[in-house]
Amino acid sequence: MHLHLINPNTTAGMTETIRLAGSAIAAPGTRITASQPVSGPVSIEGHFDEAISAVGVVEEVLRMDREAQVDAYVVACFGDPGLLAAREATRAPVIGIAEAAFHMASLISTRFSVVTTLGRTVIIAEHLLDQYGFRHQCRRVRAAEIPVLDLEDDSDCALDKIIEESRRARDEDGIGAIVLGCGGMADLTETISREVGLPVVEGVTAAVKLSEALVGLGLGTCKTGDLAFPRPKAFSGTFQHLSHLDLETTGR
Amino acid sequence: MHLHLINPNTTAGMTETIRLAGSAIAAPGTRITASQPVSGPVSIEGHFDEAISAVGVVEEVLRMDREAQVDAYVVACFGDPGLLAAREATRAPVIGIAEAAFHMASLISTRFSVVTTLGRTVIIAEHLLDQYGFRHQCRRVRAAEIPVLDLEDDSDCALDKIIEESRRARDEDGIGAIVLGCGGMADLTETISREVGLPVVEGVTAAVKLSEALVGLGLGTCKTGDLAFPRPKAFSGTFQHLSHLDLETTGR
Amino acid sequence: MHLHLINPNTTAGMTETIRLAGSAIAAPGTRITASQPVSGPVSIEGHFDEAISAVGVVEEVLRMDREAQVDAYVVACFGDPGLLAAREATRAPVIGIAEAAFHMASLISTRFSVVTTLGRTVIIAEHLLDQYGFRHQCRRVRAAEIPVLDLEDDSDCALDKIIEESRRARDEDGIGAIVLGCGGMADLTETISREVGLPVVEGVTAAVKLSEALVGLGLGTCKTGDLAFPRPKAFSGTFQHLSHLDLETTGR
Amino acid sequence: MHLHLINPNTTAGMTETIRLAGSAIAAPGTRITASQPVSGPVSIEGHFDEAISAVGVVEEVLRMDREAQVDAYVVACFGDPGLLAAREATRAPVIGIAEAAFHMASLISTRFSVVTTLGRTVIIAEHLLDQYGFRHQCRRVRAAEIPVLDLEDDSDCALDKIIEESRRARDEDGIGAIVLGCGGMADLTETISREVGLPVVEGVTAAVKLSEALVGLGLGTCKTGDLAFPRPKAFSGTFQHLSHLDLETTGR
Amino acid sequence: MHLHLINPNTTAGMTETIRLAGSAIAAPGTRITASQPVSGPVSIEGHFDEAISAVGVVEEVLRMDREAQVDAYVVACFGDPGLLAAREATRAPVIGIAEAAFHMASLISTRFSVVTTLGRTVIIAEHLLDQYGFRHQCRRVRAAEIPVLDLEDDSDCALDKIIEESRRARDEDGIGAIVLGCGGMADLTETISREVGLPVVEGVTAAVKLSEALVGLGLGTCKTGDLAFPRPKAFSGTFQHLSHLDLETTGR
Amino acid sequence: MHLHLINPNTTAGMTETIRLAGSAIAAPGTRITASQPVSGPVSIEGHFDEAISAVGVVEEVLRMDREAQVDAYVVACFGDPGLLAAREATRAPVIGIAEAAFHMASLISTRFSVVTTLGRTVIIAEHLLDQYGFRHQCRRVRAAEIPVLDLEDDSDCALDKIIEESRRARDEDGIGAIVLGCGGMADLTETISREVGLPVVEGVTAAVKLSEALVGLGLGTCKTGDLAFPRPKAFSGTFQHLSHLDLETTGR
Repeated sequence: MHLHLINPNTTAGMTETIRLAGSAIAAPGTRITASQPVSGPVSIEGHFDEAISAVGVVEEVLRMDREAQVDAYVVACFGDPGLLAAREATRAPVIGIAEAAFHMASLISTRFSVVTTLGRTVIIAEHLLDQYGFRHQCRRVRAAEIPVLDLEDDSDCALDKIIEESRRARDEDGIGAIVLGCGGMADLTETISREVGLPVVEGVTAAVKLSEALVGLGLGTCKTGDLAFPRPKAFSGTFQHLSHLDLETTGR
Repeated sequence: MHLHLINPNTTAGMTETIRLAGSAIAAPGTRITASQPVSGPVSIEGHFDEAISAVGVVEEVLRMDREAQVDAYVVACFGDPGLLAAREATRAPVIGIAEAAFHMASLISTRFSVVTTLGRTVIIAEHLLDQYGFRHQCRRVRAAEIPVLDLEDDSDCALDKIIEESRRARDEDGIGAIVLGCGGMADLTETISREVGLPVVEGVTAAVKLSEALVGLGLGTCKTGDLAFPRPKAFSGTFQHLSHLDLETTGR
Repeated sequence: MHLHLINPNTTAGMTETIRLAGSAIAAPGTRITASQPVSGPVSIEGHFDEAISAVGVVEEVLRMDREAQVDAYVVACFGDPGLLAAREATRAPVIGIAEAAFHMASLISTRFSVVTTLGRTVIIAEHLLDQYGFRHQCRRVRAAEIPVLDLEDDSDCALDKIIEESRRARDEDGIGAIVLGCGGMADLTETISREVGLPVVEGVTAAVKLSEALVGLGLGTCKTGDLAFPRPKAFSGTFQHLSHLDLETTGR
Repeated sequence: MHLHLINPNTTAGMTETIRLAGSAIAAPGTRITASQPVSGPVSIEGHFDEAISAVGVVEEVLRMDREAQVDAYVVACFGDPGLLAAREATRAPVIGIAEAAFHMASLISTRFSVVTTLGRTVIIAEHLLDQYGFRHQCRRVRAAEIPVLDLEDDSDCALDKIIEESRRARDEDGIGAIVLGCGGMADLTETISREVGLPVVEGVTAAVKLSEALVGLGLGTCKTGDLAFPRPKAFSGTFQHLSHLDLETTGR
Repeated sequence: MHLHLINPNTTAGMTETIRLAGSAIAAPGTRITASQPVSGPVSIEGHFDEAISAVGVVEEVLRMDREAQVDAYVVACFGDPGLLAAREATRAPVIGIAEAAFHMASLISTRFSVVTTLGRTVIIAEHLLDQYGFRHQCRRVRAAEIPVLDLEDDSDCALDKIIEESRRARDEDGIGAIVLGCGGMADLTETISREVGLPVVEGVTAAVKLSEALVGLGLGTCKTGDLAFPRPKAFSGTFQHLSHLDLETTGR
Repeated sequence: MHLHLINPNTTAGMTETIRLAGSAIAAPGTRITASQPVSGPVSIEGHFDEAISAVGVVEEVLRMDREAQVDAYVVACFGDPGLLAAREATRAPVIGIAEAAFHMASLISTRFSVVTTLGRTVIIAEHLLDQYGFRHQCRRVRAAEIPVLDLEDDSDCALDKIIEESRRARDEDGIGAIVLGCGGMADLTETISREVGLPVVEGVTAAVKLSEALVGLGLGTCKTGDLAFPRPKAFSGTFQHLSHLDLETTGR
C-alpha cells in the first residue's frame, strides 16, 4: 500500500516532519512518501495562503497519479485546503488532517477542543467543524498564538505555548481529548499528551491510519455525482497544462 | 493486535457472519475474535430489543477484558447499543458499526443514504445521525422492510430487496455512497456494490479498520471525564456481579 | 387515574422520596405508586449505570402492565434511561423526568439552566437537550459535584452545594428558570426556589403533572411505527422470560 | 383553578367551540372561561391578521387579570400570537395552542406531522417549530387548504379535507401522531383520530391540560429577566390606556 | 426613489434622529421620509411593547401606500416588529433594521457581536438571529444596560456605556464587526467605530442602503404564497377600519 | 464609485455578459469594470475548477488594487470561489454572487429555491447555504442540467430548460422567489421572471447593488482578525510574485 502525504506549504523541513510522523505510524506493509508543491506559500496562516496552496495540492495529486500507483492521499495542513478538488481528481481516497483528527477524537471522547497556531485561523477550523458535522462535539477552538514556522525554527518555545494552551483546554473546557490544529505539530503529540494527561489526536498520523483503513476496505472516492472526475475543458495561462484532462480515461 | 467483535444479539450464525467479514478485512497482524452475549434477544429490531442487548454488550466487554488482552472492541449492531456504556467500562477503544459506517461514507462522498432492514428502525439511525453530527451528509434513511433474521435464513430474497432499495437510493437521492444499515449484511457488501454501481459502506468491516487505526495511533477511550470507569457501587439482583467493580484498579 | 413512578435505581429510600413528591403534587383523583427494579445499581451516575438501569425500567413497565391498570408511567432518573424502550412496551404514556422538566421550563421562561449532580453526567443532559430539541433554550448544564446518594445521606451539605450552583446559574447565565437535574432532588424544589429567587422546575413533579395531562387528553403512546409493541422473538439467558412476548395481544 | 381561554379572533362562535372543547377536557376542579378581543379580525390567516390579533390577546390578559383571579391563560390560535407579550403582562402561565400541541405530540411519538388550514400559514407553523425546538420531530406541515371560517360554517366539507390530508400524512410521512393546526378544529379531534387511526393532538385541549399541570406545580411565568413585567411608560392614541401600567405593583 | 422610514415607537425626537441618519446616507436620487405611529409606546423595550408597536408599523405602511408612492419601507426598531405583517400589506420591499445590520455585518466579517440597550431585549435579538440564520455568525448579544430613551435624553452617558461594552466585545469575543442594537443609536455609529477601532454596522443606515439596492433591482415583496396581500375580512372595534381591505386591487 | 466585477472563469464573452448586466443595474454615479483572470478554466463546474479559479480571483483583486481605485469587488461565479481569500487581500468589500442572491431573496420571501446549471454543482450551493446560514430559507437546490458554456453558445435551449425547472420549483416547492445559480444567467433574469411569475433574484445584479450599499455605508472588509491582510511571507514557483506582499502598508 502506497500512501502519499502532501504538505500543502513549500517548507521542505515540514514535509520531512510530516513524512517521519507518517512513517513512524504506518503499518508494516504501508509505503509512505511525501512531497510539497513546487509553487505556493512557505506556510499557511489564513484564507489567502489556503486558496493558493489548494492549487499545489491538486497539482501534486495529478502528478503522483501519473507517476506512481498511489492508494490514498493525505492533505497535511489543518485547513484541509483543496480537499474536495483533490477528491474530484482521483479515484483514490483523499483525507484531510483536520477531518481525520475530528473523526478520531470523536471516537474516544464525547467532547474535544482544538489547539491551533494563530488566532486568525480559528475561523478556518470552525468552518470545517460546521461543514463536517462536528460542531457540537468540539467545545472550543483555541490558538496558542504561534506562527506556523516557529514550529520548525523554535519548537521549544512553541511547544511550551501549545502545552500551556492545552492545559487550559483540559482545565476549562470539560473535554476528553485535545486535537492538535497544525500539521507542523506532528512530532509533538506524545510529549503534549504526557504533559497534559489527556489523549491527544494529531491529524497527520490520524489521516495515515484512516487512509490505511479506507484502502483496506477497498473504498475509493465516489466517481459519480459531485466527486466525479472534472469535466475536460480548456484552461489558460499558468494553468494551461490542465486543459482537456480526461481523467475518466487516464486517471487512476 | 486483538480486536473483539461483539454481536449484540444472540444468534450465533450472525456472530459467525460478522467474524468472517471482520477476519476477511483485517490486517495481517490483527487477530479477530467474536462473541455474542449469553443473555439477550435473537435479533434487534427496535428500542426495546436494543435496551436489553446493551447489557449483553457491556457484559461481553467486561468478560473479555478479564479473560484476554483485547486492543479494541466493535459493537456489531447498527443501532450501536450500549456504546457509551461500553466505553466507560474499558480503556480500549470501542467502535459502533453505525458510527464507523457514517464516518467512512463521509470520507468518500459528500452525501450518502442508509439502507436498513425495518421501517421501525429508521428512527434509530436518524437519532444516531443527529448525535454523531452526520445529519446533513445523509440524504435519507431507507428501509428494505426485511426482518433481521431473514438475512440469515433467506438471504436471497432479502438481498434482492436490499439491492432494489439501494438502486432507488442511487436514482432518487443524489448520493455518492450507500451505507448498509445492519450487521447481518456484512457479507453482502461486494454484491450490492457491484449491482448498484456505487461505493457501499458496511459497518462491521468499517469498524474493524477504524479500530485498527485507533489502536495503531495508540489512542484509547479517554479515562477522565464522562467516559471514566464507572464509579464502584452496589448492584442488586441479576446484576449483583457488577457490584463494586473497581475497574480503575483492575480494568485494562 | 393510576400513575406509576419507576425509580430506575434500586435505592428504596429514593423511591420513597420520589413517591412522596409525586403524591404531594398529584391531583385528587390520581393514585400514585412507585417502585424500583429488583435488579440494578443503587445510583445512576454515568452511561454504564444508565444502560443497566434501562433493563429494570422496562421490566417494571412490563410487570406493572400485567399486575395493575396503570394509566401512565414516569421514569424518575434525569437521564431518562430506557424511555423509548419503555414506550414500545406499553400503550400507556411514558414520561421521563428530564424531558418533563425541559418542557415545563420552556413554558415559563425563554432560557433556563440545568443544575445536576456530577460533572460526568453533564454530557447525558446535553445529549437529551439535543435529542428533544431544547438545546437553544438551555444556557448551560452545571454540576454541583455531589454523588447521587449524598442526596439521601447528607442532604444538608448536598443542598447547600445545589443552592450555591443555582445562584451562580442565576447570576451568570441570564436565565429565567432552573431545572434540577436529579430525581433525588424531588423534595428540595421549594427550598431551592426560595433561596435562589427563580422558578425551579423539578422533573418528578413535572412528569406527574404532564402524565395527568396526557391521560386526561386520552393520549397514549402511538402503537404504529417505531413505538409499536416489540416484535415477539426468542430471548436467552437472564432475559428468557421476555421471549415471545405478544404485547399486541396481551399488553394494555 | 380558573383557566381563561383567549380566542385571538373575534368570531364568537369559535370562542364557544373552544370553550366547549376546553370545558369537556378540564379536570373536575377547573373552571374554564373564554373570551375574544373586542377589537381584531374575524379569523387569523397570515402574518397581518396575527400581528393585529396579538394586541387583543394582550388586552384580554390585562383585562382578566384586573377583573378576575385567573390561574393560567391559553392563547387559542395556532400561530400563538402575542404569546411572549402576554407572558410579560402576567404572573400566570400563558400557553399557546401550537406549542402545547407540539409538546404533547413529542411525548407520544418520535415524529409527527401538522395539518393546518391554508398553505399561506404553513410558514407560521414552521417558524414556531424552529423557535420552540421541534423542527426535527416534525416531518411536514401540511395544509388542507380550507379558510378558517369554513370550520364554522361548513364543517362537513372542511372536515373531509382535513381527514383526507391527515390520511396522506399517515401514509407518506412515517409519523406516529398528527397535530391539528387550528383552534377551530378543537371539536374534530375524536372524529379525525378514529378516521385516520393515529393519535391526534389538538392544541386547545392540550393547552388546557398543560395549564392545569403548570398551575398544579405552582409554576408561573418568570418575572425576572426578559419576561418581567413591561417597564411602565407612556402610550399614545388608541393605546393610551396602556400608559404607565405598573404591573409589578398591581399585576397578579 | 422614495424610502419611508417607520419609527415603531412614538417618540418624535427619535424619528428625527432616524430620518437624519437615513437622509445623510441616502443616494442623491433618494427621497427619505419618516414617521412614527399615532398610537403606540414611547419606546420599545420588550415583547409587550413590541407587540403593540407592530400595529403601528402596519398602519403606517397602509397609510403611506394610500397617500404616497413609496418604493420601500424601513422598520426602524431593532426587534423588527411587525416585519412579516408589513410585508403582507404592500408590494414594496420592507426591511427591518436588525436584519439589515446582520446582513451587512456578515459581508465584512466572519463573526460579529451585537451591543443592544437592555438585558431584557437580548432574547429578542437572539430569536431574530435564529430566524434569519445568523446564529453562528454572531458570537454574542451584549447589553449596555441603558433604557432606550436615555439615548435621547442623556446620550453622553449612554454613549460611554455603549463604547465600553463595544470595547469588551472587541477584546473578548474574537469578532470583526459590531452591530448596534437600537434604532436610537443611528447617530452614534461614527463615534463608536472611531473609539473602538472596528467596523460598526448600524441598522437604520444599513436598511436604507439595502432598500435602495432592492428597489434598484426591481425586487418587491413576493405577492404569492405566505406574503400575498392579507385576505379581505371583517375587523371589529379599534381595528374596524381594516375591514375588507382589498389590497390586491387597491394596494401598490 | 468604482465597482470591479471579476468573472472567475476565463471566457471573455461571459465577462461581457456580466459587465453589461452590472452596468445596466448600477446607480448613475457607479463605474462598472469587469475582467477575467489570465489563468484559469473556461468554465467552473465543480470543486476542481473552483479551486483553480480561486487563484485568479485573488490575483485580479491584487492587480486591480495596484492599478486602480476600486471601491468594491464582486466575485461573479455562483460558488463564490476565493471569497474569503479575496477579502483578506483588500480593504474594499468583496461580495460573492451566491451570497448576494441569498441575502436579497431572503428579504422579499420567506422561502426560495435555487436553479443552477449542473447536478454536480448542487453540493456547492448547499455548502454555501450552510456556511452563510440560509439553509432553512432555501427549500431546494435544483439543476437544469445544462453545461455552463451552453449559456453562451446556445442560450435559447438553455433558457428553456431553466424556465422549465423554475416552473417546477414554483409549483412544487412552496416558495416566494427563485435564485438563479450561475453568473452566466445574468441577462436572463427578466425573461425568466416574466415566464415564471415569481420574483427572480440573480447574483451579479444583486451583488452590484449590495456593493453600492456597503460602499455607501463606508463599510469595508474588517482588517483585524481573520480577514486581516495576509502575513507577508515567501511564495515559490508560479506564485513567487506573491512573496513578501506587505499589503498592510501598500494595500488599499
